[in-house]
Amino acid sequence: MSKYQYNPVTPADIEALCDIIGAGERVIAGPAVGEDYCHDELAGIRRRPDVLIKAASAEEVAAVMKYASARRIPVTPRGQGTGLVGGAVPLEGGILLDLSGMNQILELDPDNMTLTVEPGVLLMEAAKFAEDAGFLYPPDPGEKTATIGGNISTNAGGMRAVKYGVTRDYVRGLQVVTARGVIMELGGKVAKNSSGYSIRDLIVGSEGTLAIITRATLKLVPLPKYKISLLVPFPDLVTAIRTVPEVIRTGATPTAVEFMEREVILAAEEYLGRKFPDHSSNAYLLLTFDGASKHEVDLAYDHAAQTCLRAGALDVFISNTLERNESIWSARGAFLEAIKGSTTEMDECDVVVPRRSVADFVGFASGLQDKYGVRIRSFGHAGDGNLHIYVLRDELDEEQWPRVLGEVFDELYARARELNGQVSGEHGIGYAKKSYLGESLAPELSAIMAGIKTVFDPDHILNPGKIVE
Amino acid sequence: MSKYQYNPVTPADIEALCDIIGAGERVIAGPAVGEDYCHDELAGIRRRPDVLIKAASAEEVAAVMKYASARRIPVTPRGQGTGLVGGAVPLEGGILLDLSGMNQILELDPDNMTLTVEPGVLLMEAAKFAEDAGFLYPPDPGEKTATIGGNISTNAGGMRAVKYGVTRDYVRGLQVVTARGVIMELGGKVAKNSSGYSIRDLIVGSEGTLAIITRATLKLVPLPKYKISLLVPFPDLVTAIRTVPEVIRTGATPTAVEFMEREVILAAEEYLGRKFPDHSSNAYLLLTFDGASKHEVDLAYDHAAQTCLRAGALDVFISNTLERNESIWSARGAFLEAIKGSTTEMDECDVVVPRRSVADFVGFASGLQDKYGVRIRSFGHAGDGNLHIYVLRDELDEEQWPRVLGEVFDELYARARELNGQVSGEHGIGYAKKSYLGESLAPELSAIMAGIKTVFDPDHILNPGKIVE
Repeated sequence: MSKYQYNPVTPADIEALCDIIGAGERVIAGPAVGEDYCHDELAGIRRRPDVLIKAASAEEVAAVMKYASARRIPVTPRGQGTGLVGGAVPLEGGILLDLSGMNQILELDPDNMTLTVEPGVLLMEAAKFAEDAGFLYPPDPGEKTATIGGNISTNAGGMRAVKYGVTRDYVRGLQVVTARGVIMELGGKVAKNSSGYSIRDLIVGSEGTLAIITRATLKLVPLPKYKISLLVPFPDLVTAIRTVPEVIRTGATPTAVEFMEREVILAAEEYLGRKFPDHSSNAYLLLTFDGASKHEVDLAYDHAAQTCLRAGALDVFISNTLERNESIWSARGAFLEAIKGSTTEMDECDVVVPRRSVADFVGFASGLQDKYGVRIRSFGHAGDGNLHIYVLRDELDEEQWPRVLGEVFDELYARARELNGQVSGEHGIGYAKKSYLGESLAPELSAIMAGIKTVFDPDHILNPGKIVE
Repeated sequence: MSKYQYNPVTPADIEALCDIIGAGERVIAGPAVGEDYCHDELAGIRRRPDVLIKAASAEEVAAVMKYASARRIPVTPRGQGTGLVGGAVPLEGGILLDLSGMNQILELDPDNMTLTVEPGVLLMEAAKFAEDAGFLYPPDPGEKTATIGGNISTNAGGMRAVKYGVTRDYVRGLQVVTARGVIMELGGKVAKNSSGYSIRDLIVGSEGTLAIITRATLKLVPLPKYKISLLVPFPDLVTAIRTVPEVIRTGATPTAVEFMEREVILAAEEYLGRKFPDHSSNAYLLLTFDGASKHEVDLAYDHAAQTCLRAGALDVFISNTLERNESIWSARGAFLEAIKGSTTEMDECDVVVPRRSVADFVGFASGLQDKYGVRIRSFGHAGDGNLHIYVLRDELDEEQWPRVLGEVFDELYARARELNGQVSGEHGIGYAKKSYLGESLAPELSAIMAGIKTVFDPDHILNPGKIVE
């Protein structure tokens, strides 16, 4: 339980909230709240909110926050619930504020190359809208049905971070509602800004604990006209991963560099009922290149292919047809679900380490399988050092599972710290990774984060129990 | 004067500080402090510190901060003093902490593509070091003798922001010393991070008011092998600037797009004693393109050239020789000094507006010349909407100058607000632009910034009187 005191939601509160929202069907109380709203995708933590509110506008969000802060009722914002760390679970009950209905694309401004959206717009919708207008919204996390609001709240990274960076790099402006219900504008369409502390950058990655995002203005780039993927088999994973910094150093910056092992590919084939172009080797790198001209892309991938072959690659499969690309990337997109489907329960570690240390970390993680008698699967973004390590429960019983999981996680996070890594590359801290964040932060830094939380949310009603609380 | 109470620096303090630093020649008291340390480049505000300390290490900075916070003595950090808003002027006296002697390049890590430097390394030194190793450090503000610490403190932007973004986008990790003298590490070499609030991003652009930067790990990119500049004359400035969004929309993203008028070019020619390639037209765009292959760069500039000609350009001069590039860019680099040399005193406005509104704003600024009987010169980054508008004093007397300047500035900042612009694109707020920032911020946002300041610096000893204080 939290150290902060909250008021229970009373029938009078429900009535007042119905008055605020005006549309009764968008205020759902207690037991009528669907099971889906009580958890997210993975974190194994559940709690039913006292009331679910489906917000339709920033003004509604502001009115709800004004009411909730006056009454000291906790409010947890939620998008599509695709998070992996319990970030959208209303740990203290209270109000679950569903923003997924605020899903309008408001403006594509071709001169300023910005896309302005409500927070509930899905990543895949924003990406498609931009592409249809000849632009690219570069952030490309695996989960395409996440909302833009959620992506901003976790500073989601995704596949294309090697070349294009992460969500933070594409957030130009935000409209947010404060804990006390004031609507604020942060940043805007401007490309540069040195006008006081960057509050916008503080909101990015704050997982709904500082303010509620009600609109976002995103930066777009011109749509690259050509792209190509290389699937490169290697005899083993360490050789594969060691090649990555060399490829990137050649100056032929790939859009993405993913690594994958045979076991994960086999699981994805089974899950999708479709064959991957090749699964005869132990380990693979999947590289993509994009650019404004075919010549530029050809030059880049040719450099990369030669570097891979010199470093011990067994072959290089070039995938420049839409069909073949689709078969590779749909498999990549299914890895998480495929692994999830292969076991009874799982938890994940989303550390990020310097690019140079990826091979070291992945080898270390793999070695824990024998030590603890547990299956561990990993795939991830070799190009940017962000690993997704999945610990699978399989047949472990109720006593063994939390113990083994705890021990394996302790080892993984300790090793990540030794390698100057960070607890989370892109999934966030939420509830599930709070203790590991706590261990990784210097006490002064924890105190600063806690102080910032209090500045934004003096009553601690916004998404309580997350990140540093 | 500040609302915070500070203690005067006593002879006993000087002695204690000498003990901390150990080297007497790096602690300079009172009148012995050189005139250069009492001001920055432009802001017309001066104050002599009680004591100047030339720090040599993070540990020294930490010890000084511990002492200063215990004694409640203000501390103003300073790099090369090239700022334009009084940010490094010790408004309350106390300690001026000169970090320019911490000027070692510590590591270039080719695998992680990072450059780690002390804060006193000059931008031109960092850029050269990276280039010699085959990498580019993209931020490229006009003032090459600024320190990296200063660039980070103002989130400096520069010419290449159109394609590459601003300093914030290249700060991977920071070591900072808090107001109470604790050394903290923020971020690191990792390329993604979603591990709590981004304190690193809060330090970037905070102008020494939250913590003192003692080391920075910067992101590098592969050095583009080809570059080319286009100098494009136009019949008038508005036609020139209106062309910019169209050029950028073609997908041929220029590295830089600068605009300049004949008057500024003539001033630069006189200042440098060297001819610019052309000065027969009223207005010019200067565009650069870079890339990994000649083909890619040729394609890009060809698109851009055609777009310019269709939009009314009088000609397109291609500059692909080192010599010609040098003559153009050295003129561009001399604009500020040339304008400064043409008048008795000046002040500047560094607003940023959405790219689409640049022509509108520049036209508006120009129109103020007649209205107020004052010379106004502007040049700037047409590609990213960041304008540098200089108001020249010329023969205005002591009564006229502050009045006219105030009236012109009020009009400029009000117009920028109407266009959804921001007070500062890259020079920061410091002391000189504080009132304009105050007017532009919603009260809740001001309160949040003030609250954050107090979290970091509870005694308000760090660079007092700047940004929101």
